Amino acid sequence: MSIRYGTPHRSSSHASHYGRPPSTQYGTPAPQGYYGHATPAPGYATTPAPGYGAPPPPGPPPGADPQLWQWFSAVDTDRSGAISVTELQAALVNGNWTRFDLDTVKMLMSIFDTDRSGTIGFNEFAGLWKYIQDWQNVFRHFDRDRSGSIEGAELSEALRSFGYNLSPTLLSLLEQKYASGPSDRYGPPPGITFDRFVRACVVVKTLTEAFQRVDTDRDGWVQMNYEQFMKIVLSAP
Amino acid sequence: MSIRYGTPHRSSSHASHYGRPPSTQYGTPAPQGYYGHATPAPGYATTPAPGYGAPPPPGPPPGADPQLWQWFSAVDTDRSGAISVTELQAALVNGNWTRFDLDTVKMLMSIFDTDRSGTIGFNEFAGLWKYIQDWQNVFRHFDRDRSGSIEGAELSEALRSFGYNLSPTLLSLLEQKYASGPSDRYGPPPGITFDRFVRACVVVKTLTEAFQRVDTDRDGWVQMNYEQFMKIVLSAP
Repeated sequence: MSIRYGTPHRSSSHASHYGRPPSTQYGTPAPQGYYGHATPAPGYATTPAPGYGAPPPPGPPPGADPQLWQWFSAVDTDRSGAISVTELQAALVNGNWTRFDLDTVKMLMSIFDTDRSGTIGFNEFAGLWKYIQDWQNVFRHFDRDRSGSIEGAELSEALRSFGYNLSPTLLSLLEQKYASGPSDRYGPPPGITFDRFVRACVVVKTLTEAFQRVDTDRDGWVQMNYEQFMKIVLSAP
Repeated sequence: MSIRYGTPHRSSSHASHYGRPPSTQYGTPAPQGYYGHATPAPGYATTPAPGYGAPPPPGPPPGADPQLWQWFSAVDTDRSGAISVTELQAALVNGNWTRFDLDTVKMLMSIFDTDRSGTIGFNEFAGLWKYIQDWQNVFRHFDRDRSGSIEGAELSEALRSFGYNLSPTLLSLLEQKYASGPSDRYGPPPGITFDRFVRACVVVKTLTEAFQRVDTDRDGWVQMNYEQFMKIVLSAP
């Protein structure tokens, strides 16, 4: 029996330039050829004055990229030397100026807070920053109509390029779940903003991989109990 | 073999006063004996002036509760006669003044937008308003330490009272997923705000009921394929 779900392509000969979502491995080559770099949210371009009585801000570690240090310091508004979930949420905006969802910000922190401190240090920030830039390039690539959001066909194409060939039913559920609002009876749901697009892709990847781990004989069917089922679902972003 | 998951109590003799989460059936008796009523977000207490050239605001339907109409009109800031997802999100705040997550607002709209118009009309609003009030009473009841948020033990007690006896592993995953931020290495995750508490409870209910529908022989195990699995997960709020 053939495998019922899309296995991410292993062979680079079949993978497109966007053959998989941005990796969390530091040093993965960034997709190139698209315009622009990520910029921090406006209002953070200048260094905030330290609060009255605040300790002097620590300097960058030796060999740090000055521009990256500048961005890190701009996001670290309380000058604590580490970025909290609140600071990160305040710094991240979508193309339509909406804030990132808390769930997306928590997902990013859980990926990059490698020392489990509850905050993002400078070295962790380097990985996070690159990850967001890579996803921004992916988002721009698949936003074919330059609308600033991802619609149904664009989502389908993005997931297919990552190796996930979801059924029309699943694509429609995904589109509704991650859209910025509900559908009305006259048309499709509104598009998916950047932060929710990233979360949707990571959720599909996480759930598919978890399913595949249970599906040891790779026939597309699993047997699982309530505890396993709930654990898989609640562990996804 | 016994059922591995907590079946919601059917017998009212075993159910506590909070034996199940607020129903979406209009007319369910509200839990009583707790203080206060839900109030709209500040800033909406006065009627906004209609925009230049806007049509005159429609009046309340015959027999409408004047107070409910007043609240509805306050939330319907563009005076369209129906509440959009943006208007609803702007009107709903947690005890700590944070906005409701878009996912919670979309969940509320999907429950109460019974005519699938993409907006909430006045009759739909009556149900939504009661549902939020009922959940606020539940939240206050289980927020034993009056912290304004639900912590691990409080979440566990609330779910148990609804008939969901989740394992410590699942409770911990749930607490982390719906907390307002990540855990740091020194302690438990921060608490769960009102909107995320409601979503957590509805997610547990939705996933458990979906699992039970597949588990036709009620032995706590299911066999499902990738399509079924993803459909269940992506259909939950």
